Amino acid sequence: MKQRPRIIIIGAGFGGLFAARALANKPVEALLVDRQNFHTFTPLLYQVATCALDPSDIAYPVRSIFRQNKNIHTLLGDVIAVDYTARQVTIQTHQGLRQEPYDYLIIATGSTPTYFGNDAFRAHALELRTLSDAVQLRNHILTKFEQAAWSQESAEVEALTTIVVVGGGPTGLETAGAIYELYNHVLSREYSQRDLRARVILVEMLPHLLAPYPATLRDAALAQLQSLGVEVILERPLTHVAADHITLGDGRVIPTHTLVWSAGVSASPLADMLDVPLARGGRLPIQPTTEVIGRERVYAVGDITYLEDADGQPYPMLIPVAQQQGILAAENILADIDGRSSHPFSYHDRGIMATIGRRRAVAWIYNRIPLRGYMAWLAWLALHLLTLLGFRNRLSVFLNWVWNYFTYDRSVRIILEQQQSTLWPQPISTSPPPNMVQ
Amino acid sequence: MKQRPRIIIIGAGFGGLFAARALANKPVEALLVDRQNFHTFTPLLYQVATCALDPSDIAYPVRSIFRQNKNIHTLLGDVIAVDYTARQVTIQTHQGLRQEPYDYLIIATGSTPTYFGNDAFRAHALELRTLSDAVQLRNHILTKFEQAAWSQESAEVEALTTIVVVGGGPTGLETAGAIYELYNHVLSREYSQRDLRARVILVEMLPHLLAPYPATLRDAALAQLQSLGVEVILERPLTHVAADHITLGDGRVIPTHTLVWSAGVSASPLADMLDVPLARGGRLPIQPTTEVIGRERVYAVGDITYLEDADGQPYPMLIPVAQQQGILAAENILADIDGRSSHPFSYHDRGIMATIGRRRAVAWIYNRIPLRGYMAWLAWLALHLLTLLGFRNRLSVFLNWVWNYFTYDRSVRIILEQQQSTLWPQPISTSPPPNMVQ
Repeated sequence: MKQRPRIIIIGAGFGGLFAARALANKPVEALLVDRQNFHTFTPLLYQVATCALDPSDIAYPVRSIFRQNKNIHTLLGDVIAVDYTARQVTIQTHQGLRQEPYDYLIIATGSTPTYFGNDAFRAHALELRTLSDAVQLRNHILTKFEQAAWSQESAEVEALTTIVVVGGGPTGLETAGAIYELYNHVLSREYSQRDLRARVILVEMLPHLLAPYPATLRDAALAQLQSLGVEVILERPLTHVAADHITLGDGRVIPTHTLVWSAGVSASPLADMLDVPLARGGRLPIQPTTEVIGRERVYAVGDITYLEDADGQPYPMLIPVAQQQGILAAENILADIDGRSSHPFSYHDRGIMATIGRRRAVAWIYNRIPLRGYMAWLAWLALHLLTLLGFRNRLSVFLNWVWNYFTYDRSVRIILEQQQSTLWPQPISTSPPPNMVQ
Repeated sequence: MKQRPRIIIIGAGFGGLFAARALANKPVEALLVDRQNFHTFTPLLYQVATCALDPSDIAYPVRSIFRQNKNIHTLLGDVIAVDYTARQVTIQTHQGLRQEPYDYLIIATGSTPTYFGNDAFRAHALELRTLSDAVQLRNHILTKFEQAAWSQESAEVEALTTIVVVGGGPTGLETAGAIYELYNHVLSREYSQRDLRARVILVEMLPHLLAPYPATLRDAALAQLQSLGVEVILERPLTHVAADHITLGDGRVIPTHTLVWSAGVSASPLADMLDVPLARGGRLPIQPTTEVIGRERVYAVGDITYLEDADGQPYPMLIPVAQQQGILAAENILADIDGRSSHPFSYHDRGIMATIGRRRAVAWIYNRIPLRGYMAWLAWLALHLLTLLGFRNRLSVFLNWVWNYFTYDRSVRIILEQQQSTLWPQPISTSPPPNMVQ
């Protein structure tokens, strides 16, 4: 019997997961490698960070997803080398290094935050890319408010209750809005010793929030954010970051102990392992088939890739792009195995949306229909509930939302700190950023 | 205006929490100090460790509990010294040391695991006393099963899938039963590469499980545990513990990577700070009024205390004892303030119960009515749901239980590792054990 082709998928995010699903019950053996044992529904990370949801509400064990699919195997590990000549990858697991051979490789490791050369900012910044990040931000937020409640110095109280969010994309808006509501609608009721109000400041280097949106929605988002109470500072870069303050481009100093960084991402460092010239943001240039240019039988999908559409614009780093590319990579690999011809990527774009807080959101459905306020917020809720993986998670998120909406409470307000991971001696996320060919 | 008496309560467990509740809206100012910002419903810790519940399901923010009670203040910190002469305590907080004066002190810091002199066991043992312990045990259990799935050596697979629980009390039984069900009813379905079955072994030094129970219930518990599939080894102490095996008193070696320690507890190290002779297990001897013998205006309640009943038997380290002593301490302090006489402790004992797994339990209602099996299990479920704090937590636990019962699933199967706490430079739990006067 001929051995089935072996496909290794690196990364169980949206791209890798949809690739693996498209390979389920097909005449191949697939190995899905991830550093976590779960898939994370990243659009709701900010709700974990702001005490509205439990971590497990937005995480789904990868093994459960493929319980019925005997040809999809999963391995908990960190890929530390790709040998594209010998067609094998080296994986750091709990039990040391493993060499795993492949016939086809799909790289779907996404992106990591970038500080645009100011790596010194990282030491004082909180990120929101992984479930651990979200729990860490939750612990930080609750701890700073506790400190403020007992501080004797008013300057210190001000710094402890001032939160700066950098980045005017959807994550920045959602995080700023949710932190504002958490502080001023939930926590402040429980600090009776003094009148604690939080200041939430959103800083964006560009002249607009939500750069890819049409002007009416950009303006609506700004107005909604300001009506909530968030201060917005546009066209100002950060020039200096310290533990207790930041400095803006115009020399203004903002005392703060909490800097949330959602200003930009670059490709996952794994892009470096293929020794090909990288595109902007360290991204892997791929062909329209999702095959990496210059590397046979290596496919890449999602945030880590660079591909231009018919107008010469790069596809955005969005979940639907990753999902659709993941499916296409799997189909093109199956076609290659069968000797059929492969298909080019064609993006089915259903639009973009961002939420700002309770009953506040903007949406641009099919990039044609603009929605704002209550309607956009309902559309956002429905979409996120429906796309969440697993009935139990959907039910739990729905009940938490109903609970939080009617009680003005946030359920998950515990500061739960844990021991350091003994799993990865040298996590990839702290590696130096990749060399980029601009 | 005369200043209101100031009462400091150390510990927001069952004893401290009930003391604070009894002081709510009374003409005193109370300060509740805890190392965590939440109260933990410890009887369900083993369900967090075995993926059935989320950490936040059994944790409740202390500030929320006392939102309406302006005379109850809360402080996140670790008490590192008690000056009973000057009547003040020193508290390590995020912002350094604080001195807090008191008129009355209530000590309710509970107990910590003890290794009966074999402190070398601790390095390889997992405990189940705090919410962090539970998450750590969950991560450990899931990680070992993942390792077993990819191990090539059958001896290693055996060690990775063997779990030893030490201690035949309720926690030991509940944990052993729940781990057995998690492995063999839930996880094993998802490891299709090989037939992975877990061996769960409960080791108890005494000739019986559940020492305080009547003989019929002890035997019923043993029979139910064995019918589930758990191996029970009685009358054997541990003599040696290593990372990959343990050795019993009869020389038997059991290969295992997972040792759960629930064999015994001693009083919290805080008992040492009062410079009084301690009783068995490092416990603080108290008068029937709950006042610490020899220390004026210092009260102690719950696991940290030693008090004998009319028959000369020490009150057990059980939650209802802590709750009732907490209320009594608060009432006696209020009486002392008013110049009224204080009351002695009288334990209202509603019985004891332990669950073993799905539809398996034993209960001894009012220490008269024995229940076993399905009826005891239903009684256990109902009692724990009703005594859980907060409607949202009750609803969430109820829904999770229903879900897990009907789907044979465990919802919270994520390995979520985080950064080390930067909060406490030197956590009290790793301090050397107290000197005990036996």
